[in-house]
Amino acid sequence: MKFYQTEIRLKSQRRGFHLITEEVLQALPEIKHINIGQLQVFIKHTSASLTINENADPSVRTDFESHINKMVPENAPYYIHTYEGPDDMPAHIKASLMGASVQIPISNGRLNLGVWQGIYLCEHRDRGGSRSVVITAFGN
Amino acid sequence: MKFYQTEIRLKSQRRGFHLITEEVLQALPEIKHINIGQLQVFIKHTSASLTINENADPSVRTDFESHINKMVPENAPYYIHTYEGPDDMPAHIKASLMGASVQIPISNGRLNLGVWQGIYLCEHRDRGGSRSVVITAFGN
Amino acid sequence: MKFYQTEIRLKSQRRGFHLITEEVLQALPEIKHINIGQLQVFIKHTSASLTINENADPSVRTDFESHINKMVPENAPYYIHTYEGPDDMPAHIKASLMGASVQIPISNGRLNLGVWQGIYLCEHRDRGGSRSVVITAFGN
Repeated sequence: MKFYQTEIRLKSQRRGFHLITEEVLQALPEIKHINIGQLQVFIKHTSASLTINENADPSVRTDFESHINKMVPENAPYYIHTYEGPDDMPAHIKASLMGASVQIPISNGRLNLGVWQGIYLCEHRDRGGSRSVVITAFGN
Repeated sequence: MKFYQTEIRLKSQRRGFHLITEEVLQALPEIKHINIGQLQVFIKHTSASLTINENADPSVRTDFESHINKMVPENAPYYIHTYEGPDDMPAHIKASLMGASVQIPISNGRLNLGVWQGIYLCEHRDRGGSRSVVITAFGN
Repeated sequence: MKFYQTEIRLKSQRRGFHLITEEVLQALPEIKHINIGQLQVFIKHTSASLTINENADPSVRTDFESHINKMVPENAPYYIHTYEGPDDMPAHIKASLMGASVQIPISNGRLNLGVWQGIYLCEHRDRGGSRSVVITAFGN
């Protein structure tokens, strides 16, 4: 049984959805030693999140940002947590809708993603800065 | 420490929410050898997803489909990723709202689900076809 | 390789979002024996859920409840699963939006959460009662 873990800071990104599959893979090359297992990426923040979605056409990521801003608008009249700026409370809600972690099977030393799947960093703040993630891989 | 993994194609389903608990259990009977552990089901697609919800009254699954179509409508004027049809971009967003995987505890050789819980395949495309899932179980 | 698991009933909570990090930690003190690993908390219900979000200002949790009630309203005209009361079908949908489990890295015997992160019980029913969760920790 193997257990590997590392913590990295992702490249700072503007508000929106961003592919980070390569950054994650480069941070934990030990994945190649795992025959059957799992990889988890966990983000240590409450106003940014992680999800898995299409890795090809960037217009998908643009539409994600447009739609989530409709689903969770800024300046809703019922928000009371407003002192950190209009992008703050929506960012918390968006983060829980997308989730704080992704968990991906490992097969034969590689992430067993579908052909069109990639890992997204979902940056919900206007100026979120660099985000910390814990990457854990385990298996036989 | 035991690690089991298999990849299967689920029965093709129409757009909507569908119970797949039995299909999953039949695909990995080795769960019975695990005393304490976890089962993960991971879908290798970005326009279908997995979730856990009520396993009894089919009207729950009908209402899921009705409501998610309201939350993530087709033909929103701000979508730019439209060339794969009106059901495509909503399908990507719905997939991330529900999630690409479910992770369930195993106790005494069985899934430790609540009495009313089942695993749903959420098919977000009009004609998604058969979907591939990777099923991983591990534990002592 | 260590595997620990316990099942507890959480303190009954009113409808809304509630911090349960301490309840979880007290239920599985064996976390301290794990150097690198993972903790999972899984809720055995389909009308309550778990997520990770801000552990400080209670106004964040109030706004979560306000907004999720807008996103998934009661008495939508298209609901057909209505015989368990107006809060029931929305509760099922909210539960899948938030998710049935959280999975957190363990590092050096402690949960490796961000400074501002806590575990939320999301109680979506008016009178949900006490909720059962399965807590599993594993690692080296």
